[in-house]
Amino acid sequence: MTDREALRHVQDRIRALGPLDDFAMAAATARLDALTKPPGSLGRLEALVVQLAGITGDPHATFDRRTIVVAAADHGVAGQGVSAYPADVTPQMVANFLAGGAAINALAALVRADVTVVDAGVARPIPDVGTPVARLVSVPIRAGTDDMTGGPAMSRDEALRAVGIGLMVGSTVVADGAELIGVGEMGIGNTTAASAVTAAMTGLPAERVTGRGTGIDDEGHARKIDVVSRALGRHHPAPADPIHVLAAVGGFEIGVLVGVLLGGVAARVPVILDGFITGAAALIAAALAPGTERRCIAAHRSVEPGHAVLLERLGLRPLLELDLRLGEGTGAALAMGLVDAGIAIRDGMATFDSAGVSGPAGVPDPGRR
Amino acid sequence: MTDREALRHVQDRIRALGPLDDFAMAAATARLDALTKPPGSLGRLEALVVQLAGITGDPHATFDRRTIVVAAADHGVAGQGVSAYPADVTPQMVANFLAGGAAINALAALVRADVTVVDAGVARPIPDVGTPVARLVSVPIRAGTDDMTGGPAMSRDEALRAVGIGLMVGSTVVADGAELIGVGEMGIGNTTAASAVTAAMTGLPAERVTGRGTGIDDEGHARKIDVVSRALGRHHPAPADPIHVLAAVGGFEIGVLVGVLLGGVAARVPVILDGFITGAAALIAAALAPGTERRCIAAHRSVEPGHAVLLERLGLRPLLELDLRLGEGTGAALAMGLVDAGIAIRDGMATFDSAGVSGPAGVPDPGRR
Repeated sequence: MTDREALRHVQDRIRALGPLDDFAMAAATARLDALTKPPGSLGRLEALVVQLAGITGDPHATFDRRTIVVAAADHGVAGQGVSAYPADVTPQMVANFLAGGAAINALAALVRADVTVVDAGVARPIPDVGTPVARLVSVPIRAGTDDMTGGPAMSRDEALRAVGIGLMVGSTVVADGAELIGVGEMGIGNTTAASAVTAAMTGLPAERVTGRGTGIDDEGHARKIDVVSRALGRHHPAPADPIHVLAAVGGFEIGVLVGVLLGGVAARVPVILDGFITGAAALIAAALAPGTERRCIAAHRSVEPGHAVLLERLGLRPLLELDLRLGEGTGAALAMGLVDAGIAIRDGMATFDSAGVSGPAGVPDPGRR
Repeated sequence: MTDREALRHVQDRIRALGPLDDFAMAAATARLDALTKPPGSLGRLEALVVQLAGITGDPHATFDRRTIVVAAADHGVAGQGVSAYPADVTPQMVANFLAGGAAINALAALVRADVTVVDAGVARPIPDVGTPVARLVSVPIRAGTDDMTGGPAMSRDEALRAVGIGLMVGSTVVADGAELIGVGEMGIGNTTAASAVTAAMTGLPAERVTGRGTGIDDEGHARKIDVVSRALGRHHPAPADPIHVLAAVGGFEIGVLVGVLLGGVAARVPVILDGFITGAAALIAAALAPGTERRCIAAHRSVEPGHAVLLERLGLRPLLELDLRLGEGTGAALAMGLVDAGIAIRDGMATFDSAGVSGPAGVPDPGRR
């Protein structure tokens, strides 16, 4: 199967899934309403449990086996001085993920998630770390993208290749038993790519969707907005052709994430988005396979202005607002803690009947959710 | 020591604590900044770690031993039809806490917290549950308060007694080794009391601070606003005399929570507030001992309109916004998961030096926090 055929296949599978499973959602709601608490009083935790039932089709689904897929790649546009950090940091941080010293390792361990690192195109060699604590899938498309201001970041074939690799990673993770997938990323320069993708997919101007990434100064921020504007002016990427958007202004890790998202969603495994870059991947994935967004969970809203824009476009309300701006899947890991909380409620509480607790005093159940 | 003397003693201790510990906060910040992530990029998780250092005075403090104190009592004002649930539910839910079937049991177990239930004045007998899974401290002041629209909810001596009992509970919990305290409550009618306390302490009118509690209909909501207005008109409770506010329109569980808060804070143990009722207790506690609020963590912002008002008045920004409206300490338990995340970051990550990761490329560290 070519990458193009694999993409078409997953698009067909997602189309065939249709809307979320109404029966499973009704069953989950009935269960939650029988528990010893006012109906809906746990707010978004309850809505999350219902969404998980709708995605999986199983009101009793468990999510003990969980993986965070962290895709990493370099960006030619980093040469334009759009990041506070040098490009050396990409392989260094990949090594750090493998050695277990990064924030994502600490947070993934807390929620009992494995970490799968995908080298989708890191420009320089990844330092050796001895015996890694995380899995490395080494499938570099090329040693970093080209500078999007000089030409497309990658060819159309490379964009399809990135998505195809992501589909393979997604299937592998699902075949290994993952019941819940978180996605994250690493790549110096990738908030610039995510800003350009968001602008292309939403039609908004660069200044609306371009922030400070890991912490660039005013001058760098102005330069970054200019870079995004110039790339958009050069390539005219448009939402009708999401693969062109990915090729023109995206990144290898973004393409891989598109594939991981589509692969997880097609297998009815809930996918937790992390921050701005994974959100940009979700924009592309949802354009390729509408309905994908319904099967994603937005972990948090970051401080990147483009992130709020794209979440709204996707119709996703983030669970957390903690001013995170790290990436790596850290927000997705935190959101897995809320999944645990929702499932603990669903499975760990007594019902009104079993506990001998009285219901409302003849007052009709107010509208909720 | 009389209740009044015990209160004066804890007020003196909190005054002597002064501001948060600058040295400990600077040490925590230095540690966080040495870790392999852009400085401040984990946003409010990092701010939480710094605040915990400032409260405890120890940048390496751990919070493995944790208790959620759930104070329960009944309210005479419940007879005015201000709740969607009958007053029978208070003892039934206390029994449910003891039997381990409530939401707080499920969420406390998830974050490895003990649950201590305080019967501060439940009107009817608590059903027997055999061997309880939570600790019950049975110190009822009286079988529920009086209806605040007919007279004060309790006498001034009873208000002091409730605070005194809370101080004892707080000391006991600290003596037992608690490094982190969460507070929660149960009491049919207690959002009415919390609304009245919030109005009294902020000077805002009843309609600004009175919501739907566990889910009352429009007519009940209007009645509840009228009840709060009438109680305020009758007693004229004012922030200059917080014990009078507690006596006139408060509740026994609110008074106990005031004491638990003050006791925990005086011992430099961080206290996590839950929702609206615990927030009302914090308003009173902060009026009795200014600075108490700096040593509290606001777990979440509930859907109750008065909760947002009082958090702003206390200068506390909630960690979570999940549309919770249950109480019991459920939000506090969820916030303990974020404490775990912050500590996992602080203690579990590599430093730039140890991991051989480059710092920012000569770009000055942008302002943060």
